[in-house]
Amino acid sequence: MIPFTADAARAVASVGEAGVIARIRGWLGEGVSPPPPRGIGDDCAVLPGAREGARLVTVDSVVWGRHFDASVPARAAGAKLVRRNLSDIAAMGGAPADAVLALVCGGDVALEWLGAFFEGVGAACRAFGVALCGGDVAGAPPGFFSASLALTGFARRPLLRGGGRAGDVLLVTGALGGSLLGRHVDFAPRLEEGRWLAARPQVRAGMDLTDGLAKDARALLPAGVDACLDLEKVPVSAAAFELAGGRREAALAHALGDGEDYELLILAAADALDTLCADWAASFPALALTPIGRLVETPPGGAGGRLLDAATGEPLCANLRGFDHFA
Amino acid sequence: MIPFTADAARAVASVGEAGVIARIRGWLGEGVSPPPPRGIGDDCAVLPGAREGARLVTVDSVVWGRHFDASVPARAAGAKLVRRNLSDIAAMGGAPADAVLALVCGGDVALEWLGAFFEGVGAACRAFGVALCGGDVAGAPPGFFSASLALTGFARRPLLRGGGRAGDVLLVTGALGGSLLGRHVDFAPRLEEGRWLAARPQVRAGMDLTDGLAKDARALLPAGVDACLDLEKVPVSAAAFELAGGRREAALAHALGDGEDYELLILAAADALDTLCADWAASFPALALTPIGRLVETPPGGAGGRLLDAATGEPLCANLRGFDHFA
Repeated sequence: MIPFTADAARAVASVGEAGVIARIRGWLGEGVSPPPPRGIGDDCAVLPGAREGARLVTVDSVVWGRHFDASVPARAAGAKLVRRNLSDIAAMGGAPADAVLALVCGGDVALEWLGAFFEGVGAACRAFGVALCGGDVAGAPPGFFSASLALTGFARRPLLRGGGRAGDVLLVTGALGGSLLGRHVDFAPRLEEGRWLAARPQVRAGMDLTDGLAKDARALLPAGVDACLDLEKVPVSAAAFELAGGRREAALAHALGDGEDYELLILAAADALDTLCADWAASFPALALTPIGRLVETPPGGAGGRLLDAATGEPLCANLRGFDHFA
Repeated sequence: MIPFTADAARAVASVGEAGVIARIRGWLGEGVSPPPPRGIGDDCAVLPGAREGARLVTVDSVVWGRHFDASVPARAAGAKLVRRNLSDIAAMGGAPADAVLALVCGGDVALEWLGAFFEGVGAACRAFGVALCGGDVAGAPPGFFSASLALTGFARRPLLRGGGRAGDVLLVTGALGGSLLGRHVDFAPRLEEGRWLAARPQVRAGMDLTDGLAKDARALLPAGVDACLDLEKVPVSAAAFELAGGRREAALAHALGDGEDYELLILAAADALDTLCADWAASFPALALTPIGRLVETPPGGAGGRLLDAATGEPLCANLRGFDHFA
């Protein structure tokens, strides 16, 4: 049987990336994916059996034509693969350790290009203390290149997505949007910041921003809870303003929807907010940690999981969406 | 810069899969891949930090048109992905534990097909006690499908490739060759057998056969050592005979070169051979463990690493080669 269909209504693109992920657990059947934090649902899986704390594991890919194109040097593409995974470890408050790499590419990949790609992988591993411990090489049709990295790490107290509750404050590091102008390949995974946050009990939940705030933030909402966003407080990057020709509203749309920010989004207890922000500023004076909203209980009858504009109380308009691999 | 070249002399196909792998360590640079068993070189990486014994990790992919085609049901392709990885855990004498999966596919993959693929993944995970703990979904051009699985496990005493020495006996489980007739998707990873072998100190080294005995066996040879193969003792599968029209010599070529046998190849101390084989027969009466040769010191001036025909003392002829992804 051939995997592909010409009938768009039967193809994965018809349900989108989120639709595919939602179906996978059902397809796998009972007893295969344990509940989080070991199973599907966090930035990393939290595995038992570590001598101290927990072993984390995550996997991410870079695909030619999707995650990078001809404008990105091979070396930067290789470094991006490692940094994407490091951002997942950072989101859990972990320290990176060992990795394995699966290469899938056509026989027409240039040796010189592949060498530069792996030089980039090596440089990023060296910079962040990752040991590349093995891998696999598989052929693919000409013109295709992808590499997937599975990265492990350790965390004493992993920061999970599911720890938030109504009343918590939503905070974000850095500034968002416009990553296509360069930051999507040239970013610093927030490893030290993630460990700092995870060590504080007043920080209840966290994740990294990969598909855009407007899509990702929903993952931090427990059942029966919505998020109220102060849109004027969302930190908008200079790159987002550049893409938007300087117009604040269009720049905000970039900040909410562009994806590949690789900043941290966290939930903190409201009564500890002032202390947290003051301590943060003392520890990381060069990186903003900005409160951008608050979790609120959904009105009776609602399922929760909505992002609301704090100024109007209305759901964010539908054009402020995140990135979908199959859209 | 575009990853691909029309100049065959500059493409990865010109150096083959082994050539690419040999270059990767150099491209990565100093200090990125630790020495084996933690680093590149064994069927799994052996990671420190486990509460008991060692944590193993391996990664393998299945690519449409390479590892399976339209003759393979989607469910079987999914199960094959898990079993390929399980075979690596088996080769190290480990027990499987947790996995993450990276999906890279076009938006034109049929939902029905993908569902059956993941049902196969789920069934194989359930059968062998694997917890699928997370993953990543990435888009690719239409008509492309690959999935990479990173699988972890635990081993009390991991069986490595590098433990052999001159005088050791080479043994193989099962019968080899002809996997394309069906066994390449429908095989039993030798998990119980691998743990049994790894628990015995007289078993010095081991690996699983994925690219054919003639290619894989070289990985068990220390520097300055060759392997002398008793070709008439190599167990040839019925499928290899079927492919060869019943002719023994052609069937032997399949047994040495076909790949995807997923049997175990081990080295054992010669003085313990009789006990080992008797104990094996009592424990696994339905599966052969066959001595097929012996390691010998290379004559002075030689580098080692050769496979010799025990009957003639000459190197195996060049047409008995294993599988190369870029050949």
